[in-house]
Amino acid sequence: MKSFERRPTYDKILMGPGPSTVDPRVLRAMSEPAMGYFDEDFLSILSETRELLRYVFQTKNELTLAISGTGTAGMETALSNLIEPGDRVVICVNGFFGNRMVEIAQRYGADVRVVSAPWGEPISPEDVEKELKSLGKVKLVGIVHAETSTGVLQPLKEISEIVHRHGAFLLVDAVTSLGGVEVPTDKFSLDFVYSGTQKCLSCPPGLAPITVGENAAKYIRGRTKKVGNFYLDLSIIEQYWDGGKVYHHTPSMNLIYALNEALRIVAEEGIENRWKRHERNAKALCAGLEAMGLELLVKREYRLPPLTTVKVPEGIDEALVRKRLMVDYKLEIGAGLGELKGKIWRIGLMGSTSTSRNVMLFLSTFGEVLRSLGFKAHVEEGLEAAFEILGEDGVR
Amino acid sequence: MKSFERRPTYDKILMGPGPSTVDPRVLRAMSEPAMGYFDEDFLSILSETRELLRYVFQTKNELTLAISGTGTAGMETALSNLIEPGDRVVICVNGFFGNRMVEIAQRYGADVRVVSAPWGEPISPEDVEKELKSLGKVKLVGIVHAETSTGVLQPLKEISEIVHRHGAFLLVDAVTSLGGVEVPTDKFSLDFVYSGTQKCLSCPPGLAPITVGENAAKYIRGRTKKVGNFYLDLSIIEQYWDGGKVYHHTPSMNLIYALNEALRIVAEEGIENRWKRHERNAKALCAGLEAMGLELLVKREYRLPPLTTVKVPEGIDEALVRKRLMVDYKLEIGAGLGELKGKIWRIGLMGSTSTSRNVMLFLSTFGEVLRSLGFKAHVEEGLEAAFEILGEDGVR
Repeated sequence: MKSFERRPTYDKILMGPGPSTVDPRVLRAMSEPAMGYFDEDFLSILSETRELLRYVFQTKNELTLAISGTGTAGMETALSNLIEPGDRVVICVNGFFGNRMVEIAQRYGADVRVVSAPWGEPISPEDVEKELKSLGKVKLVGIVHAETSTGVLQPLKEISEIVHRHGAFLLVDAVTSLGGVEVPTDKFSLDFVYSGTQKCLSCPPGLAPITVGENAAKYIRGRTKKVGNFYLDLSIIEQYWDGGKVYHHTPSMNLIYALNEALRIVAEEGIENRWKRHERNAKALCAGLEAMGLELLVKREYRLPPLTTVKVPEGIDEALVRKRLMVDYKLEIGAGLGELKGKIWRIGLMGSTSTSRNVMLFLSTFGEVLRSLGFKAHVEEGLEAAFEILGEDGVR
Repeated sequence: MKSFERRPTYDKILMGPGPSTVDPRVLRAMSEPAMGYFDEDFLSILSETRELLRYVFQTKNELTLAISGTGTAGMETALSNLIEPGDRVVICVNGFFGNRMVEIAQRYGADVRVVSAPWGEPISPEDVEKELKSLGKVKLVGIVHAETSTGVLQPLKEISEIVHRHGAFLLVDAVTSLGGVEVPTDKFSLDFVYSGTQKCLSCPPGLAPITVGENAAKYIRGRTKKVGNFYLDLSIIEQYWDGGKVYHHTPSMNLIYALNEALRIVAEEGIENRWKRHERNAKALCAGLEAMGLELLVKREYRLPPLTTVKVPEGIDEALVRKRLMVDYKLEIGAGLGELKGKIWRIGLMGSTSTSRNVMLFLSTFGEVLRSLGFKAHVEEGLEAAFEILGEDGVR
């Protein structure tokens, strides 16, 4: 074997679309030694983790746990457990992850209908109503609460009423909202919500928290045709999480330690305070960017606090800007995805990355990089606008 | 929220069927801060990890990487990527994990035929040959190299020749052999081998290393019907691992850091030395158990060094023995699974758990616990038999 010497640098500030910066407490918890998956100590950590997940999901749902995979595995868990071949489903598409829902639903044999909106805009409740009225029986409607590809926060109240009036399940992607924005699981009776750990929970990636409402859980437990996927079969996974009744697969205890600690941090801060912090810092970031002379992709009322999308000004090489920030400042921001590739930057303020310090650091470095490339950014105005908002309240 | 106070103890010796004890170096590597999944530093860690995986798999296979899930996800990756609905497959069943292969293959629409052997015995090449001769076209044969439920190490040479002579792919479960026993990927032209990280690699669970031979890889890249599973679709995952060409899902960089470090430890020890260490310590354990008066489930020539299965003596409460070892000595051993539930104990000596120290500690505590429950264990004879073998060579 050749020798492996070079070590990477790890002190990066993660202001991309996730992963976000992980609290050192979480890294320490994760590095505790493993233990057996039927060990009473581990089962009690699982049980506490479920309770904490219910808190961040704002739900009383019994069927709340973390799937042993990333956010995409959460999406596939939802679709594979709810869909049987031939089922008609409606997927709302206004970004990359809506398209992914379509792709996965089709693999499980669903007859998929799409309700769409332009990338950067929310789905209109009227369009959902119209589609449901025109169809017969629909099994479920899938929608993205927080589109990580566009930075749109989707209002869910009206859509939930419409979907339930038509007797369908509402499946919600909360990958980039959970822990940073209110996820109204019980408030709006969402039937299946899934998320990821590496966004606003600021935990390393590798787990997908999910919560399932009573009706959807009953359906999953009672379905006669087996789920098309074994690894994500909730009817078995649920029995393991319920006090270790059966063996299904070996969960990653170290990732569970990490999630548990990350959720304790959320509980210590208080979930409402956390939402406020995300909102305040995003507001400062947006004000700063606009005052500098940049244009945001999303209208004010639909902006997603954990992820801000900025249009690339005419004539600026977007990849070069990201590279300069990474090489000179070890600061990561994200590129556009799908049809927004090359057209926007994605700036994340998620979980422990959402700080007043990061807002100021980003605006100052980003502004100067843009100026050095010929774009006349009003850096001073931008910093001033942000600074004012950051000082507005006691939230840190 | 209520306050969460009690902390579990983490200083357990893991001599069950996995996870095994994780080296502190691996825990430290895992707790480095996360970074972006397109970060050049991370892509270079991925690339090095692939090279190290090829070393432990003893292969030159290009398509070698780690799936973002546990060993069962590895099994499902193999079956879902190779099977199209209606394909005829043969699964060899002589334990719990063979049965699981059948279950998963059926979910992907395969027409499954079973070749079986009693639990605790290997599959006979003649039986495989007979079955293949009686069938027409067979897409693949699935077999478990190291049955974690029984402790049988399956010889693969003859079976591989037979399977390939019949034009089928050979799919091998190496979850409990990789890093502890030779996995003859290239030597016997195995077409798809998958494993887990928490056994003989002594890394936390959460990843499934896989390697795919040229013919199987070509088939997967060229199949026209999409894989029934999106999260485990190798044709896309491969493009991400190949220098980050596309986004598929967010890999758990912390688990990759851990795997990378665990594999470096294997490379430093030298894979052959590692096999020898596993063999020597298992030999000492088996000799000790037999000298004490216990009966092993598996015949000498088919014993799996990383996992030894011991029959529960008449009249002994097997769960009580495990409980006493855990409560009094913080030492975990495993119970029987499936049809061996209540009939055997499973004692793991995997990766960094495979030490002469653990052999002696286990024999002395296990022997005394059995004596206290009325079984006349010849503890002194057992320790002497083990001690002699442990001193035989310089392997530590």
